[in-house]
Amino acid sequence: MSERPRRLSRRTLLASGAAGAAGLAVGAAGASAVGKDPDSQDLGRSTVPFRGAHQAGVTTAPQTHATFVAFDLRDDVDADGLRRLLRIWTDDIERLMSGRPGLTDTEPELASRPDRLTVTVGVGAKVVEVAGAEVPGWLGPLPEFVIDRLESRWSGGDLILQVCSDDELSVSHAVRVLTKEARTFVAVRWVQRGFRGPVKGPDLPRNLMGQVDGTAAPAASEHDRLVWVGDGSRQLFGAQPAWLEGGTTMVVRRIAMDLDTWDELDRPSRERTIGRRLKDGRPLTGGSITDDPDLEARDSNGLEVIDPFAHVRRARTEDRTQQFLRRPYNYDDPPASGDLTNAGLVFVTFQADVDRQFIPIQARLAELDLLNQWTTPIGSAVFAILPGTGAGGFLGEALFS
Amino acid sequence: MSERPRRLSRRTLLASGAAGAAGLAVGAAGASAVGKDPDSQDLGRSTVPFRGAHQAGVTTAPQTHATFVAFDLRDDVDADGLRRLLRIWTDDIERLMSGRPGLTDTEPELASRPDRLTVTVGVGAKVVEVAGAEVPGWLGPLPEFVIDRLESRWSGGDLILQVCSDDELSVSHAVRVLTKEARTFVAVRWVQRGFRGPVKGPDLPRNLMGQVDGTAAPAASEHDRLVWVGDGSRQLFGAQPAWLEGGTTMVVRRIAMDLDTWDELDRPSRERTIGRRLKDGRPLTGGSITDDPDLEARDSNGLEVIDPFAHVRRARTEDRTQQFLRRPYNYDDPPASGDLTNAGLVFVTFQADVDRQFIPIQARLAELDLLNQWTTPIGSAVFAILPGTGAGGFLGEALFS
Repeated sequence: MSERPRRLSRRTLLASGAAGAAGLAVGAAGASAVGKDPDSQDLGRSTVPFRGAHQAGVTTAPQTHATFVAFDLRDDVDADGLRRLLRIWTDDIERLMSGRPGLTDTEPELASRPDRLTVTVGVGAKVVEVAGAEVPGWLGPLPEFVIDRLESRWSGGDLILQVCSDDELSVSHAVRVLTKEARTFVAVRWVQRGFRGPVKGPDLPRNLMGQVDGTAAPAASEHDRLVWVGDGSRQLFGAQPAWLEGGTTMVVRRIAMDLDTWDELDRPSRERTIGRRLKDGRPLTGGSITDDPDLEARDSNGLEVIDPFAHVRRARTEDRTQQFLRRPYNYDDPPASGDLTNAGLVFVTFQADVDRQFIPIQARLAELDLLNQWTTPIGSAVFAILPGTGAGGFLGEALFS
Repeated sequence: MSERPRRLSRRTLLASGAAGAAGLAVGAAGASAVGKDPDSQDLGRSTVPFRGAHQAGVTTAPQTHATFVAFDLRDDVDADGLRRLLRIWTDDIERLMSGRPGLTDTEPELASRPDRLTVTVGVGAKVVEVAGAEVPGWLGPLPEFVIDRLESRWSGGDLILQVCSDDELSVSHAVRVLTKEARTFVAVRWVQRGFRGPVKGPDLPRNLMGQVDGTAAPAASEHDRLVWVGDGSRQLFGAQPAWLEGGTTMVVRRIAMDLDTWDELDRPSRERTIGRRLKDGRPLTGGSITDDPDLEARDSNGLEVIDPFAHVRRARTEDRTQQFLRRPYNYDDPPASGDLTNAGLVFVTFQADVDRQFIPIQARLAELDLLNQWTTPIGSAVFAILPGTGAGGFLGEALFS
């Protein structure tokens, strides 16, 4: 245990600090979740706590593997059935996240190594309606962007489970347990799985285009205003339904990357597209990776260093509330016959307010971002991430009050 | 570095010993491959050596992720073109396995964390023919077994790359580099990706049925007779073409698991199906996990403890040459619409002689194994794994001599 501090990278420290600042009930267990001791017999048994004001899996330092499962609620499920499903899920998510088998787990041995398993539950408009609660206006499809080529097989859904772990076997087992026991209430609508580099060592997280990803994010101290629904976000964005207090909103976009044409581009052109250096993710105008690019800077010819249509310029705004927490995963699925690649990003964002934080940025990017030449949104879904729940409670209980 | 011994589990020690006994040119580098120091800045940078008498990825302790890519050779590729492809692959596999970018790598930053990356190259009959070498009789489809429901989209192929790493991003990048540069010579025929638990800690590797997998395997001291083609195997099985000296044979079977009906079975019935305890993989007749089951043992009612049709009984034989090295990976792909699961095993075996080692066991299992009720082979392919290559050489050079 004395070796723990050496294991903590800058990124895990940030994430850990973030969780603390956001009021997550992590405490000592939270530290164990990100600072596991690799020499112990407990390797792979690290856990992230389930109970607390917020659900895990949002500000949790990203695990290497994620599966996103969206469900359609069956038409014959009423408020009672929905409550039953949420109670069953709550119970088994708590068990699985702590390394115990689900209640009716038929492969209990597969539960013993959670490896920082988190399961995060979100709901769509139909679920809120069935529960008899107020449906917020943003809880539905996003406005259509000109770049969208959405396919229904990657879009929508009445419920979502985001299942993450540093061990894919743990993800697979949790998905199976939770999907199986829900089958009388829901039908699987879509499944997306993704991966990313481990949160360890000095390396930066990169996507399959080779770009350093997720550099601009709300500071941990801003999570109570920009990520979680509560007093902080209310002052900025106005009220949300009471049942969402302590929750957040989630956007899941499936972004196909045309790696084959991207690979034909030389490095300077790629860096110009993004506005950042490929090598280390720093802005082309210098400074550190977390520094703002200098959008006014000009080169010796008087031209803007950051291209007018560069991704960083289009994404950025003076309005500092237009930020969201990104938690993206790469996908690299078998290509269709004749194709070379089928890869991209499961682009996942969390923000207190979809309309005020996500949509303005997305609209600017859809309009003029150079990167759009090589990326195509093919799936889109919006969910309300339920608040966390304390001892004895169940996820979504406020929906029924 | 002083902490290394604590990191070595029984399984990595076995695997490491195996590599040494089999004459792999591992040495100090081989040790670094399995005993990485998780506290160092080099985390994720562990490498497995490429050059040696044998290719890596066969007796290498299994990494957590694998992608198998089978290719069809384009009709216009002659011996010269084939030689060029094998030289290009050799060069880039050596680079990638050592953590350096491929020669024409367009995302060089993604190469920096190989995390025990291995790439293993195998060939089918067409490639051997084009090279002008002797095609062994076994290098083609396996005989059809009654249990087979083979689909062409998971079967056959003229070339295979087995790409493994403990980091899925490393696998994805290597597959892309090697596939992209080969596209004028080959077309992708199928891609299968898989995962397994990490080789660390005290846990046993389990498949998605919850079974401890891979318990019966040739001892490391037997690899020169039962795995690698050479003097040892020649004495047992007779001669193979000279170009295969130092190589081995690979069978890739895609085995679909019907987890939904398997889950309806109670634990005693599952254990009876296999002949092993689910909890720890020990034979139902006792002893340790590596002990032979006592096939003669009877219970107080005079009934055989190991069912006449149990998997372990059907797989086992008095003929100790009927063994192969298993290196299976789980798959858990998104299910087709309306299905609950699409999971199973990419069952990969290596053996010196397909006809004498693999087929007899498979034939016995196809006939009467209880497990067949819940498993279905849906893909099948056989490859000759090329020998390793020394300094300055290229994979498959003996094919052209």
